[in-house]
Amino acid sequence: MIVTALTIRPARDEDREALASILVPVIRAGETYALDRDLSEDAILSYWLGADRETFVAAENGHILGTYYLRKNQAGGGSHVANCGYVTDPAASGRGIARTMAEHSFQAARERGFAAMQFNFVVSTNERAVRLWRSLGFAEVGRLPRAFRHPVAGEVDALVMYRML
Amino acid sequence: MIVTALTIRPARDEDREALASILVPVIRAGETYALDRDLSEDAILSYWLGADRETFVAAENGHILGTYYLRKNQAGGGSHVANCGYVTDPAASGRGIARTMAEHSFQAARERGFAAMQFNFVVSTNERAVRLWRSLGFAEVGRLPRAFRHPVAGEVDALVMYRML
Repeated sequence: MIVTALTIRPARDEDREALASILVPVIRAGETYALDRDLSEDAILSYWLGADRETFVAAENGHILGTYYLRKNQAGGGSHVANCGYVTDPAASGRGIARTMAEHSFQAARERGFAAMQFNFVVSTNERAVRLWRSLGFAEVGRLPRAFRHPVAGEVDALVMYRML
Repeated sequence: MIVTALTIRPARDEDREALASILVPVIRAGETYALDRDLSEDAILSYWLGADRETFVAAENGHILGTYYLRKNQAGGGSHVANCGYVTDPAASGRGIARTMAEHSFQAARERGFAAMQFNFVVSTNERAVRLWRSLGFAEVGRLPRAFRHPVAGEVDALVMYRML
């Protein structure tokens, strides 16, 4: 199945419940994001909707299937490099939603004057994500040895991925 | 000259003035830290003494010559990797103070259960720092192309450096 009418728009207050339903299971699983697995739902939403970032949702017929945030990766002399995080509802996996959000994020980042995008911590066992980022022009510019304790796979590497915009 | 009697201890409230005198010029110069150059003195101290980190000072005869912070680099599955930032008073440069602080930080990090240490953003033109970190066992595990806009050198790479503890 392909994406037919995916709308990507800024997150709104009334999206909180839908966002929680997508984000909380991902954080609880602890396999892809370096965040405390026992963060409260409020803390997860505070992080994802933080004042230091812009948060978007991808909706199909009003139903939210994915979300991402966009922010500066560093301040000062590093503030021309963007950083994003993306999560897709597992029920909508395989439909190109992450790819569509990523392409939206590149455009949004360019419009805001960013010159490059960096992912600081791509868990190496998250092969689907690694493959997607490579196919979208990201290079593995760094490898952090055993930097992630995966709840199933144990200590695994994390990747730093980077692309110009 | 070598360091004869350097005491490294946790920063205290009464160190704020001395810390500001060391930190503010470094942030204003904007050549080594990816922080806004126009941060207020209060904002710089709030960052350096933030609740998410432990901050230490290196003092000689009661005079503060350097400072560093120690924190988790990531949360959750990444929380076994430490991160530090170090600044030495330029007037005390060349006396091994940064090296002494670094060695102290490795021990402090080990005592707190950290297994590795990561520097996320070593500006490549900061050759003295790069040389010091290499000599202390850090490997360049990543290179971020043109990720730093240096006020004099223009767009330069930043390095990701890493060592086990």
